[in-house]
Parts: sequence; C-alpha cells; structure tokens
Amino acid sequence: MPLAAVDLPRAYRLLNHGPVTLVTSADGERRNIMAAAWAMPLDFDPPKVAVVIDKSTLTRELIEASGTFALNLPCRAQAKATLDVGSISGRDLAGSDKFAHFGLATRAGTAIAVPLLEGCVGWLECRVISEPHNQGRYDLFIGEVVAASADTDVFRDGRWHFEDAPETKRTLHYVAGGAFYVTGESLDLGD
Amino acid sequence: MPLAAVDLPRAYRLLNHGPVTLVTSADGERRNIMAAAWAMPLDFDPPKVAVVIDKSTLTRELIEASGTFALNLPCRAQAKATLDVGSISGRDLAGSDKFAHFGLATRAGTAIAVPLLEGCVGWLECRVISEPHNQGRYDLFIGEVVAASADTDVFRDGRWHFEDAPETKRTLHYVAGGAFYVTGESLDLGD
Repeated sequence: MPLAAVDLPRAYRLLNHGPVTLVTSADGERRNIMAAAWAMPLDFDPPKVAVVIDKSTLTRELIEASGTFALNLPCRAQAKATLDVGSISGRDLAGSDKFAHFGLATRAGTAIAVPLLEGCVGWLECRVISEPHNQGRYDLFIGEVVAASADTDVFRDGRWHFEDAPETKRTLHYVAGGAFYVTGESLDLGD
Repeated sequence: MPLAAVDLPRAYRLLNHGPVTLVTSADGERRNIMAAAWAMPLDFDPPKVAVVIDKSTLTRELIEASGTFALNLPCRAQAKATLDVGSISGRDLAGSDKFAHFGLATRAGTAIAVPLLEGCVGWLECRVISEPHNQGRYDLFIGEVVAASADTDVFRDGRWHFEDAPETKRTLHYVAGGAFYVTGESLDLGD
C-alpha cells in the first residue's frame, strides 16, 4: 500500500468529513483497539482532535497510563473488523489482545509507541493534552496530533480523492446497530 | 415536508455519522447562521453535543449571550447555502442578517428561542453547559440537546433512511475549499 506522511496543518482534513475511527492504544506490552464514532478535529495548527472514550474501557486505562493514542481511519473493506473490535473487551482476552484475536496486522507508530492498524486509509498519532475535568465529567479526551499519515491511493495533496480509487478504500460513517454509511459522491462547489 | 420530533435518547443518531452542521443562534432580535463541520455527539441520555465555534464569529457572541444554539443538518439541496453562510459575517450586514440576505426561511425552535433553518433534514436544539475553560482555550462548546426533530422522509424509527428518499435529501460531509462528500451507500452488517 502506498503510504505517505501528511503535513500536520492538513491533518485535520483526514477527520473533517466525520468518518468513524478506530482508537489504538498501548502501555508497555499491553495494547488495544476500539471503535469510536465520536471524534472530531478541534484545531488546525498545531492540529488537535477531540474523542470520547468511555470510562469502562481498557482503551481508557491505556490512554491514561501512556498519554498517547492513535485514530485509525478504517475503510469499507474493514467494516466487519470495525464491528468486531467493538464486540469484546480487551480485558477478556487474558494473555492475548484484540489484534491477535482477530488477526489484525499493525505497524509501529512513528511518533508514539502505539500500534497503527494496517489496511486503514489514514492515521493520526496523538498525545493527550491533560484535561482532567473533561475526561472525568464527559469522557472527553483532547489530543495534539504529532504525526499523521495516509494511503496515497485515497488521500494526497492534502485532501481525499476517493473518486479515483477502489470502492473498498472509502471511509465509513457509523450509524448504530452494525450499520454504516460509506462516504459517497464528491460534490465540489469550490472555485 | 413531513416533520416529527425525535426522541431525545435517539437524538445522537442525527449526528453520529459525522455530517456538516449549520449553527443557528439568536439573542433578542439578533440572529445568525454559520457552518460548522466540527461537531459530534458527546452523550446519549440526556443527549449532549460538542461543537467548535471560533471566537471571532457573531455566532459565538450570540451563543454566549443567550446560552442556546441549534445544530441544523443541511442536505444536498442546501450545499450552496451551506457555503454561502460561511462566506460572510453576520456583523457585515447592518440592519439585516444572513437569513434575509440569502433568502433562507426559518421556523421557530420548539424549546429555545433560536431559528431553525427550513429545508434541513434534522435539527438539534441545545442549551449550553457552561464550560469557560473549554470555550476560552479550545473554542469548544458543550450543549445539552433539549429538543430534536427530523424530516421523516429520511429519519424515522430512530435512524436515517436515505436509501428510500430523493438524493437531494442526503446529508453532507465537509472536506475543504467548497468540497463535500454526500452521505453514500448503506452498509448494514447488523443482525
């Protein structure tokens, strides 16, 4: 897969259209992955993101311990995996983890010690900006994006180009109950 | 247009798939509308939302004065209007406002004194939960959804049904520079 770094001031564009995300996290040898539909850009440069991470999750524990997380953007080919990783808790896989359990390949983050899910089409590596009130009251985490990358088949020159690529590489928008919408037709009213 | 209230515990589903929003606001006789792509659900019940509102905007001034705002969900037929309302500031329209300037019809909110944009396909009426630190540092506003409604051609039984309705009623996902993606194909992996 053709992969390239995304300039940080353009990193918000990976998330601007509201796709579902997969949150990866790690603390030492422990690592996890979960789905999160509630994620959005929060600033351009330096780029920041906001994401909701429930208190009950292993992901929450790993993020609070390490101060890092990554938002991976799954594509249509990964819809089932996106549901799968939300179907169990990493805490229930003693001696293993969801990556091994579901056969999910990863590569190392470039700026943080968090695995990135292969086969995704975009990745935002983030360091938590500690906001205990938001985390405690709203389960809301704010992260600064310290590295970003994308599959150049679908994201290049600072924007998405789904229309030139296989349908299987389109991003997903989560509805509920196992249902998604695939990112659809491009509508360009710009100059 | 067939319009119905949305039960509050399902209101998050209006926003779950990451559509662009139009933020309407009012304080007394003054009223405004702006586009915001950075909005997401924050809680289920009572439903909350998070949205980024820049300090420079008239919308920000009106929201801080009234403690209320609405998120309107524009559809494909409103793509140009969505760009139009972002092209000027309400402050530059002395004695008028963007609704009059662009010929945008509204109806009254049901729970808050904020206009709702006609022709949209979903509406979330919100009261600000005051969080001065988030508002000051991140331009981040948290609102409790106190009423929600939708066009039943595309949202009924607590979920979107774009596939049965005209293409013009699909929601939009903002990219940058006047470009959107339309909400695309449904992909249902649920039971």
